[in-house]
Amino acid sequence: MTNPVSRREFLNLLGAYGGTSAVLQAGAALGLMPGASQAADLSLLNMSSKGKKVAILGSGISALTTAWELSKAGYDCTILEASHRAGGRIFTVRSGTVVDEIGNYQRCDWDNEPHMYFNAGAARIPSIHRSVLSYCKELGVELQVFVNESKTNWVQDDAMLGGKPVRNTDYSSSMQGFISEMLAKSLSESEIDSSLTESESETLLGMMRTFGDLDENMLYKGTVRAGYGSGGFLDHGTKKDVIALRDLLETRLAGNVMVTTQEGTGSGPLLMQPVGGMDRIIYGFANRLGDRIKFRSPVTAVMVKDDGVEVAYEQNGESQLLKADYCFNCIPSHLMTGIPNNFPAEYTTALKYIRRGRAYKAAFQAKERFWEKEDIYGGISWINAPIQQIWYPPHGIHLDKGVVLAAYNFGGANFTEMTQEQRIEACLMYGEKIHPNYRQLVEKPITIAWHRMNHMLGCAPRWARNRGGWSQEEEHLYETLRQPVNGRHYMIGDQSTQHSAWMESAIQSAHYALADLDQRVRAETA
Amino acid sequence: MTNPVSRREFLNLLGAYGGTSAVLQAGAALGLMPGASQAADLSLLNMSSKGKKVAILGSGISALTTAWELSKAGYDCTILEASHRAGGRIFTVRSGTVVDEIGNYQRCDWDNEPHMYFNAGAARIPSIHRSVLSYCKELGVELQVFVNESKTNWVQDDAMLGGKPVRNTDYSSSMQGFISEMLAKSLSESEIDSSLTESESETLLGMMRTFGDLDENMLYKGTVRAGYGSGGFLDHGTKKDVIALRDLLETRLAGNVMVTTQEGTGSGPLLMQPVGGMDRIIYGFANRLGDRIKFRSPVTAVMVKDDGVEVAYEQNGESQLLKADYCFNCIPSHLMTGIPNNFPAEYTTALKYIRRGRAYKAAFQAKERFWEKEDIYGGISWINAPIQQIWYPPHGIHLDKGVVLAAYNFGGANFTEMTQEQRIEACLMYGEKIHPNYRQLVEKPITIAWHRMNHMLGCAPRWARNRGGWSQEEEHLYETLRQPVNGRHYMIGDQSTQHSAWMESAIQSAHYALADLDQRVRAETA
Repeated sequence: MTNPVSRREFLNLLGAYGGTSAVLQAGAALGLMPGASQAADLSLLNMSSKGKKVAILGSGISALTTAWELSKAGYDCTILEASHRAGGRIFTVRSGTVVDEIGNYQRCDWDNEPHMYFNAGAARIPSIHRSVLSYCKELGVELQVFVNESKTNWVQDDAMLGGKPVRNTDYSSSMQGFISEMLAKSLSESEIDSSLTESESETLLGMMRTFGDLDENMLYKGTVRAGYGSGGFLDHGTKKDVIALRDLLETRLAGNVMVTTQEGTGSGPLLMQPVGGMDRIIYGFANRLGDRIKFRSPVTAVMVKDDGVEVAYEQNGESQLLKADYCFNCIPSHLMTGIPNNFPAEYTTALKYIRRGRAYKAAFQAKERFWEKEDIYGGISWINAPIQQIWYPPHGIHLDKGVVLAAYNFGGANFTEMTQEQRIEACLMYGEKIHPNYRQLVEKPITIAWHRMNHMLGCAPRWARNRGGWSQEEEHLYETLRQPVNGRHYMIGDQSTQHSAWMESAIQSAHYALADLDQRVRAETA
Repeated sequence: MTNPVSRREFLNLLGAYGGTSAVLQAGAALGLMPGASQAADLSLLNMSSKGKKVAILGSGISALTTAWELSKAGYDCTILEASHRAGGRIFTVRSGTVVDEIGNYQRCDWDNEPHMYFNAGAARIPSIHRSVLSYCKELGVELQVFVNESKTNWVQDDAMLGGKPVRNTDYSSSMQGFISEMLAKSLSESEIDSSLTESESETLLGMMRTFGDLDENMLYKGTVRAGYGSGGFLDHGTKKDVIALRDLLETRLAGNVMVTTQEGTGSGPLLMQPVGGMDRIIYGFANRLGDRIKFRSPVTAVMVKDDGVEVAYEQNGESQLLKADYCFNCIPSHLMTGIPNNFPAEYTTALKYIRRGRAYKAAFQAKERFWEKEDIYGGISWINAPIQQIWYPPHGIHLDKGVVLAAYNFGGANFTEMTQEQRIEACLMYGEKIHPNYRQLVEKPITIAWHRMNHMLGCAPRWARNRGGWSQEEEHLYETLRQPVNGRHYMIGDQSTQHSAWMESAIQSAHYALADLDQRVRAETA
């Protein structure tokens, strides 16, 4: 380097780059963290319900899980849902769907075809999310493979190569090549690890050569792994031009491209999606629960009594009271604190502590499947702009049209405070940087700002203020919220977990609460 | 290192490891090399056929492509196929399928369900194989995403960790961690690249930290990207034990795991497969070609005349003669040289030069989808044993049974010279190293040794003797075979390409020959 960086210096530099936070964010967004997921072993079916009544507040997947399991065990469940639909952030937009963002009411008028949908919330089921998969199986929800990462897709950053988009494969093959070349050079020049034997060094060097596709001098001179510049089938293939390391380093998307590539869901845990939309899971539950779900029935008060819970709610403009033995509540914590209740002060403190994310998504109906003409059949294109990602559907291959996800980002005040027209223009303007005729190829935009969605006003609950870990106070508040009030009122949902924004967490929160209930009821009847 | 390896030494060591050949093999097997594929722009429809007759020998996909394109243009095509079925190495095994391996006749008796099949030959369509995809679209062949690589899957080598299988994700996350740590160390200690500025170094180091999930001291201390050791949803996740670099280096599968991971088809070009089996493409052609295909009609002589081609063949025990204006021939070169013909000597020399591969595959009906209980929903497990790979189906998720690919390897005299019983025992014995109850979970084996398959006796034609590149003689012979004999007889198929064992190549060989014919016919009529 012109200015060699000392060990101390480069550790400081990392702060500027944001190494750890980038990792954490990527991990959280892609659901990679969990691995040892275990669906709770519920044996409620063996439990006598004694005709007990249960009030379930909200109809997110934690609520539906609770209602389904308790109904199977003979409990008398009533689910109160404030909005016109079940599922919360499991929300699929298709022809006719109403998007009830406050101040930005939208009604989707895409072609009415099974493949023309957009999962505006949950969109991916990792193969290690056993509880979700278990319910898909139980409810008969057909699954198909989802594509998160495809190297044919684009990476675009105005700061790199004059803004010219490059194929992910060209970027990541080149980066791998340079990483391997640099490491091989250092291995050949110094004792990188004094514990390695000659045979181990041999294997490591061989692997670096393979990993980087280095030449016989252990140098990266381009690769045909990323595709040929020309030829390849009938004629000898030529290599594409090497993208210089200097150019590769111009973009801060390197982490997204290189880590998503490897840890992401394309090559991490396999991802799946229900055929026809994520809400197939919601309908799977809801169809079985039938009229136990009361729609347009907002809760107006929750009072925990010694022998049960009383829930006041509105229905058809009239106040109703639901008396139940137990209550399971997945109303978003920051909304729940505004509803009259008699929770203990510490419980309320815990509810108030949880912050909410501001993720947004947008989608277009594409008049033609233009990405397929670019050899793209699914997965993400990355762009260093507020839209951040463009997703192409891995379903409906070769049909006439498709739905393209036009933006997916977190915490985007810059985007979500725009008017609908401004949002759409942003999607088009940034999308054009990757797909030249984008503006002409897409139509009928839908945008979702989760913190403006009616009855939700936020997403992705977060406990820890500090990325470095949980404070003692946070641990305490979390445990407080996990305990039922008076043994009667349970807070459930991904807000009651340490890994929010995933269906698996929400379901596990329900299982955790149900297991607690189970113990209490068994103790009572023993 | 205890014995530091000099630059010269480590280059020598690479020979022992087989760096380049490993890369080439992986690339060829996964179809990664090509990228700039362009479907030929055929305009035969504009060409007057003048009722010309065409003899097409063999019914591989190059033959079917030729017949389909020429039929659309009004040519009178006859396809002579020696066996009872069309498609050659595009061969899907399902209930009732006859596997006519010589001396090892098998009839498949798996459950008769749409998802219970096994693509014994071609199995993957990369998103960059435009010609194949174009025909899928034209023929209405429904496609779905195929999974090549899934990090939940297993890596097993008796030489590593006492033979205990490890998850691909544990292996590759650890290897990435150590690579990043070593590179970061060297970057902090030396001028690795004097052309990098401080800002570029910062970005590179940040990227290595993200890539390897290093700690604040730029050391790899394990990761939760590979999943938690425990917890993760409701409780804090713990890291799994780190696999020591020394252990990671014990297996020669490192290249397969690390490069497939990144260049492979899971995260390389997206892979697809036809819904219901690869032979949906063959049926797509064959149903349109109808009785133009003559089955059980082996060719017995090919004589090129001044004004056409005469093809003798057998049908129902009787000799027949087919006189045609043109002939397109995809009979495997090493079989064609044994059929009487009047080809020029150099043409025959070229035909004889091509060697054939000996790939084999095996498959079982699984009595239950045991892999799904291990969080696996598709993709490859790698094993350092003659079976080499186990594939799990990405289709039929959560149904009762499935077909598991039990072996896939190349050049396996050790396997294919075994009796059927010995092959099956090998599949079970090695499979048990990954899945403890494998032997009890699978049944009804099918094995395919392509160099013993009737009417084929080989697969994966290869021109170059030397992995380093083509000799001048090889270039010459290749060009010789690409020219039609007397402007009348064309050799087609992947044997007439530089990238064998892929459908795309075979189709492009047909397009190349058709474009040549087109020019000749236009010249004639001009």
